[in-house]
Amino acid sequence: MHFFSDNATPVCPPVMAAIAAADRADHGYDGDGWSARLDGAFSDLFGVPVKAMWVASGTAANSIALACLCPPYGGIIAHEEAHVAVDECGAPGFFTHGASLMTLPGEGAKLSPDAVRERLRAIRPDVHQIPARAISITNATEYGLVYTPDEVAALGDVAKDHGLGLHMDGARFANAVAHLGCHPSDVTGRAGVDVLSFGCVKNGGMVGEALVFFGAQAEARAAEAARWRKRSGHLLSKGRYLAAQILALLEDDLWLANARAANAAAQALAAGAGTRLMQPVEANELFLRLTAEEAASLRAQGFDFHDWGEGAARIVTNWSQDAAGVAPLADALRKLG
Amino acid sequence: MHFFSDNATPVCPPVMAAIAAADRADHGYDGDGWSARLDGAFSDLFGVPVKAMWVASGTAANSIALACLCPPYGGIIAHEEAHVAVDECGAPGFFTHGASLMTLPGEGAKLSPDAVRERLRAIRPDVHQIPARAISITNATEYGLVYTPDEVAALGDVAKDHGLGLHMDGARFANAVAHLGCHPSDVTGRAGVDVLSFGCVKNGGMVGEALVFFGAQAEARAAEAARWRKRSGHLLSKGRYLAAQILALLEDDLWLANARAANAAAQALAAGAGTRLMQPVEANELFLRLTAEEAASLRAQGFDFHDWGEGAARIVTNWSQDAAGVAPLADALRKLG
Amino acid sequence: MHFFSDNATPVCPPVMAAIAAADRADHGYDGDGWSARLDGAFSDLFGVPVKAMWVASGTAANSIALACLCPPYGGIIAHEEAHVAVDECGAPGFFTHGASLMTLPGEGAKLSPDAVRERLRAIRPDVHQIPARAISITNATEYGLVYTPDEVAALGDVAKDHGLGLHMDGARFANAVAHLGCHPSDVTGRAGVDVLSFGCVKNGGMVGEALVFFGAQAEARAAEAARWRKRSGHLLSKGRYLAAQILALLEDDLWLANARAANAAAQALAAGAGTRLMQPVEANELFLRLTAEEAASLRAQGFDFHDWGEGAARIVTNWSQDAAGVAPLADALRKLG
Amino acid sequence: MHFFSDNATPVCPPVMAAIAAADRADHGYDGDGWSARLDGAFSDLFGVPVKAMWVASGTAANSIALACLCPPYGGIIAHEEAHVAVDECGAPGFFTHGASLMTLPGEGAKLSPDAVRERLRAIRPDVHQIPARAISITNATEYGLVYTPDEVAALGDVAKDHGLGLHMDGARFANAVAHLGCHPSDVTGRAGVDVLSFGCVKNGGMVGEALVFFGAQAEARAAEAARWRKRSGHLLSKGRYLAAQILALLEDDLWLANARAANAAAQALAAGAGTRLMQPVEANELFLRLTAEEAASLRAQGFDFHDWGEGAARIVTNWSQDAAGVAPLADALRKLG
Repeated sequence: MHFFSDNATPVCPPVMAAIAAADRADHGYDGDGWSARLDGAFSDLFGVPVKAMWVASGTAANSIALACLCPPYGGIIAHEEAHVAVDECGAPGFFTHGASLMTLPGEGAKLSPDAVRERLRAIRPDVHQIPARAISITNATEYGLVYTPDEVAALGDVAKDHGLGLHMDGARFANAVAHLGCHPSDVTGRAGVDVLSFGCVKNGGMVGEALVFFGAQAEARAAEAARWRKRSGHLLSKGRYLAAQILALLEDDLWLANARAANAAAQALAAGAGTRLMQPVEANELFLRLTAEEAASLRAQGFDFHDWGEGAARIVTNWSQDAAGVAPLADALRKLG
Repeated sequence: MHFFSDNATPVCPPVMAAIAAADRADHGYDGDGWSARLDGAFSDLFGVPVKAMWVASGTAANSIALACLCPPYGGIIAHEEAHVAVDECGAPGFFTHGASLMTLPGEGAKLSPDAVRERLRAIRPDVHQIPARAISITNATEYGLVYTPDEVAALGDVAKDHGLGLHMDGARFANAVAHLGCHPSDVTGRAGVDVLSFGCVKNGGMVGEALVFFGAQAEARAAEAARWRKRSGHLLSKGRYLAAQILALLEDDLWLANARAANAAAQALAAGAGTRLMQPVEANELFLRLTAEEAASLRAQGFDFHDWGEGAARIVTNWSQDAAGVAPLADALRKLG
Repeated sequence: MHFFSDNATPVCPPVMAAIAAADRADHGYDGDGWSARLDGAFSDLFGVPVKAMWVASGTAANSIALACLCPPYGGIIAHEEAHVAVDECGAPGFFTHGASLMTLPGEGAKLSPDAVRERLRAIRPDVHQIPARAISITNATEYGLVYTPDEVAALGDVAKDHGLGLHMDGARFANAVAHLGCHPSDVTGRAGVDVLSFGCVKNGGMVGEALVFFGAQAEARAAEAARWRKRSGHLLSKGRYLAAQILALLEDDLWLANARAANAAAQALAAGAGTRLMQPVEANELFLRLTAEEAASLRAQGFDFHDWGEGAARIVTNWSQDAAGVAPLADALRKLG
Repeated sequence: MHFFSDNATPVCPPVMAAIAAADRADHGYDGDGWSARLDGAFSDLFGVPVKAMWVASGTAANSIALACLCPPYGGIIAHEEAHVAVDECGAPGFFTHGASLMTLPGEGAKLSPDAVRERLRAIRPDVHQIPARAISITNATEYGLVYTPDEVAALGDVAKDHGLGLHMDGARFANAVAHLGCHPSDVTGRAGVDVLSFGCVKNGGMVGEALVFFGAQAEARAAEAARWRKRSGHLLSKGRYLAAQILALLEDDLWLANARAANAAAQALAAGAGTRLMQPVEANELFLRLTAEEAASLRAQGFDFHDWGEGAARIVTNWSQDAAGVAPLADALRKLG
């Protein structure tokens, strides 16, 4: 049973069915009928008019979002363990033409408004220093924690006060919303988020993530993003296959159902892991203390996962699992004591 | 019946079957079993050791190839109607960080070795002028013509003489090879091509093109390309679905069979179009004179295609067609007189 | 006697005196008293409020101007022999992060409004093609011709109609205005120019050119340009020495007096060159037919100049010359017959 | 008496004399006689064959050096208070096309080899993470401390072990060497430095810094740097005025004499500042505790300097001062108690 990444998981059946349904002739790029429905589908989801588009990957989604918010000479405040900072080989720097990531520490890979304000105060307003222009947060975070609506709104206020754009990397947005039980707008548009990378692939998709633009500048930014998407090779020739996947995930809130399953599996494992947990478990990731011997023992029982430095491990659950399904690993963790 | 683009076509059944077969858990990115087989499959195809990788789109394939061949301050010689020059919103400039396209005219969207040599002679070897560092050709060309092995080799010689890299945009490489009936290496590695964008999507795929590196620098360039792929957001999370498609096209030379069908359809239409043809038909595209009235008449009969400026049209055939299948349009063209 | 470039000329005495006068302690970068006077001095010169700043070189001036007018995915329409296109090693591509030069032919290195309009019409308004965003013209042109106020205004109208920015490379702006005898605003702000590279070094300066921003967006663009200047290493530590040179050239219209001297010298040589001239002589450059033997003969007499391809030469006059001073070369040309 | 920056100081007389001596016609750009002597002059200075060129500013020198050492997808390890990190508005990101600064803390703005090795160990060798490719150190550091030959060599060893380039920002290199009393090669080429930004402007120059390339790759890197210099607008038209300044500073070791004077002035002030000093004084900068009242009192006595956050100040001495000349400030500091 694999727990090393939600990327490792197969495509969920309704998404696969949607791909099959899209398998007929239509216009190329995003000129097809499926792509045309994205704005409407996401506006319905968020309860406000938004602009939405598919891109090929989460890295592209994040980077295009940041390119829309930050000029080449600007800075992007992000957590020092943010995916954009440590796992994208400098993609934000590529898409923004050299903007700087201004990284900050913070519990559970969360940015605190106070830390952000302090960082902003330290920037001299002259041309020698890099002016911050955007904040990027990940929800759920890289440690599986979830920003609440209030927490996002507090960062949204900082952004507003300083004229910064606010981006949310939502590779696991579904898991965050499933945990919170709130309206998806509560942690995005209503809380000041300008652009959301709405994750699909980790949550049951095959290829394609969505970029969602909120607020008064949504249209202008989406038009700009469309240029970046083309220019970066992300305007795929047969976009209908991507749009269809995304629409399938939105249909009947499949995205939430999938995330709830993964979260439930994570909670079951958390109960098994007990005091080994290094972070509270809120979404679908667990970080736990595990000796090399314990890890080897679990692997011998058929459970796969990533080591997380020395003496620790990362376990990721996914849409295809649930509490019952992961019971064997929960038990195995319990037995380790 | 649609003839506006091979991008508009559905996915061919064996590719769809390969996607289904790949729909199980495996490592993310390109850590899966399918991706691992690409080097071998393409080395078998070309009969020499090559390096190969999937990327998400043809624009990405071309741009990453050029970024491997040309520094930011260099120039890339290409036809003035090349896809890289007119249909990628400056993607090569993005990926190369500002390299210049040095465009030349030429019959049928082909570069002539003489024209390239003349252009090279005109560059002063000082730091004020942009030094050419690469040549990019499209095979089949944007006008549906095919470079022969000798023609490619002649450009390969120019490249070699001047220390330039040679890139081939093979969005319709299959159609070119199907037309030539030669070994695929005859128009690539053996003719001096350093990097090939091996097109899949127009030829029956859903998402994913292949980049193939030839020659002594293949390994170094592929390693560099892997960085560009990640950094540009093209290292998709579930790469196995892309690799599987590409492998399916290589299996039993499906790529050639598909292209032969499209080419045969084009020949059938060419016979119908007669003296209307503005370019010889060698691959799967036809450019023909057509008045607005004639175009309207054809469309009224259910044939869709792109206008090509005033008084002309572009008709593209695809893998799902053949001579018999397109007979209605061939007849309709014939009837126009 | 050298005629190979106005770059080869010494610094004119009032500029040197201004450097000496600036040789005392003041704040670094552009925090000094001289730099602070630039806005006012150029506003006085042009008779309207403008923003002005020094940069280290003409290439930087042009490139920063273009970066303020054109996004990375945009295109800049320029003459195919423009300095920005052929003599700056791709600097505009560097500063704009990959914007494309869209070059056009044209008599005397001038852009014609009709040719520009035709080029603009050929661009499809979709994301696949590069949208033009700026026009760059050189006045005096690379062939020593001068755009009149009407000619600039006609291009200004095209720019306005299509929402493009208009940049003027004025490396030899002084020579153009001296030739026209018009108000400097007639060929810049009043004619629709948004940003002017105001040349100083070729006209008697040592180091430092001025960037001048016109119109409603002047302030915003100058603020942006200040970022680019710093980021590109052009905010020199001791800016007062540059500002002082520029101010010295503006004082009592020294810039015009210098240019008039160079132009008068060019006219004297033009009279000597007679029918050898390949272009009308309006500023301080002459292009003339000259066999290799004739060139050798002139050089043997102590006249130095650049060959201009085969059978032709370029002769450049400068501020330190006048009609009388260049009489020996005028005579020598006359004697060649 | 000003102590706010060595940039605020006038040009030293021999440099001004050299400018006057260069004020005659010669070839433009770097085609002149002075520029041609730089390689030789620096090879003599360092006692080994090096390549050298002028650039317009220190920011350009540093950025071009880093662009020669680090690809766009690479990382540059630097101190978190390094000039390249905090005072160049992201210039290294601009010139390298998005390379990342990997900043580290360290006493006195010095990098420690252990900290660098630890940072390097933390980078996973996959394409998702940014590979370090260069180290940049400043000597004298931003806190006025001096890396010894052994300290540089230790970092040179780290660089060598990991295949990284080593750059030294020598804006105050003269002050460092003057303090050390060593051969200039001891802290550069012999210690593993690949490229040195050799500072001139803070040490008596007007415009122009030197880039010096050491080692087996010097020639190739200098050729690459020449492209970057042109492309970034730093190949000034009348380069002889820059080359002449640099040569004047090398003549009879004027660069060292100037730095010794500044350092001596700093020592005199350090003696006056006593326990107020926050950092040891080794070069020409002092950082000292100073209340707002004390600062006001000193300013009322005619001494100008920069505040350094709250309760502290930065005092910079320069070539035009010496121990005797700064005695009034030394006394004033002493009197503050």
